[in-house]
Amino acid sequence: MKKAVVLLSGGLDSATTLAIAASRGFDCYALSMDYGQRHASELNAAKRVATALGVKDHRIMPMALNMFGGSALTDNAIDVPEKETNGIPITYVPARNTVFLSLALAWAEALGARDIFIGVTAVDYSGYPDCRPVFIETFEKLANVATKAGVEGDPFHIHAPLIDLSKAQIIQQGEKLGVDYALTVSCYQANETGEACGVCDSCRLRAQGFADANVADPTLYQH
Amino acid sequence: MKKAVVLLSGGLDSATTLAIAASRGFDCYALSMDYGQRHASELNAAKRVATALGVKDHRIMPMALNMFGGSALTDNAIDVPEKETNGIPITYVPARNTVFLSLALAWAEALGARDIFIGVTAVDYSGYPDCRPVFIETFEKLANVATKAGVEGDPFHIHAPLIDLSKAQIIQQGEKLGVDYALTVSCYQANETGEACGVCDSCRLRAQGFADANVADPTLYQH
Repeated sequence: MKKAVVLLSGGLDSATTLAIAASRGFDCYALSMDYGQRHASELNAAKRVATALGVKDHRIMPMALNMFGGSALTDNAIDVPEKETNGIPITYVPARNTVFLSLALAWAEALGARDIFIGVTAVDYSGYPDCRPVFIETFEKLANVATKAGVEGDPFHIHAPLIDLSKAQIIQQGEKLGVDYALTVSCYQANETGEACGVCDSCRLRAQGFADANVADPTLYQH
Repeated sequence: MKKAVVLLSGGLDSATTLAIAASRGFDCYALSMDYGQRHASELNAAKRVATALGVKDHRIMPMALNMFGGSALTDNAIDVPEKETNGIPITYVPARNTVFLSLALAWAEALGARDIFIGVTAVDYSGYPDCRPVFIETFEKLANVATKAGVEGDPFHIHAPLIDLSKAQIIQQGEKLGVDYALTVSCYQANETGEACGVCDSCRLRAQGFADANVADPTLYQH
């Protein structure tokens, strides 16, 4: 079986991405980041999802992105916005997906995997620059000039299977693959038990996705 | 003053790079990685160099690349080769410079810096793919599609001022800028006090560089 490294945050999108990678016949190695998120419930969700979907291995990399700050997700002094804002929102974490894909690449090369999956989407999303197709394509180019495997003609492929899907389409695809969305946490400010705020960008996109998909929403809310 | 983030390992090349960045008028923010190197002497050297060259801030990011293994520099079960080998040597750390530049990019964006310096060289080097000009150029492209600043028209520049220089030329340039190479540690397997093995690839390139530059070599050896 071919190996793949799958970035797994514990949210709806990355859980679906992991199910897609497994459905394509890959042995999956899930990588999560402990990057100073506001609550550990996201990482607990990642552990539950990794177990439920039968990964070969799940690693949690400590990653002190909160050392740099600059985002509502890594700096407790910055509030998470509770309504839609113009432009790229303050929940953007500088270079987050570049850092995450770089680490996935490091593990993939060490493991002998040449396939990396990331659950970014450029349809129902927060407008982050590192969720766009041009970012994924450019990272794949970089991977193949940056690594021993790449320059020796055994290239890496970066898969972003959700990139053109709406949130409703993602949920429908996950349902077909048996993803249990009750295990996932999408909220930017979930509490310790994983209950969602219901008002952040991520909660709004998730709730609308379940409504549009005509799928019962298993999300537990704080209120 | 414009700010720059400078990757600082504590070796000869990165110390020279920091001195070059400072000589170009940048306020320098040095970033080192605690990535499971064999000895802490490299990080101690980075601290000494950062202080000597008057950086504005020096951060050491914990980075468990040894969690992935796959290199003589991050896995104690793999010996560091003591003579030249064909091809890319086992001291290659999968995706190391991609990971390091990604983190430099994260800090730079959070700080408001748009200039990042890295001390790679493609002349007297170990043949690592992530030390070549095409890697640096591709990373710069990635930085400008990956980030808020990049897509908003305030681009990042990745500087690799040593890339075309021989080791002797690097040392001559550092000498002019007052770099104290006695503070630096280049050896892949230095001991705890920073004494070099004298036989690894990095030691051989360094010793030859001082000889070719006609500069007294301040390196302390274990034997």
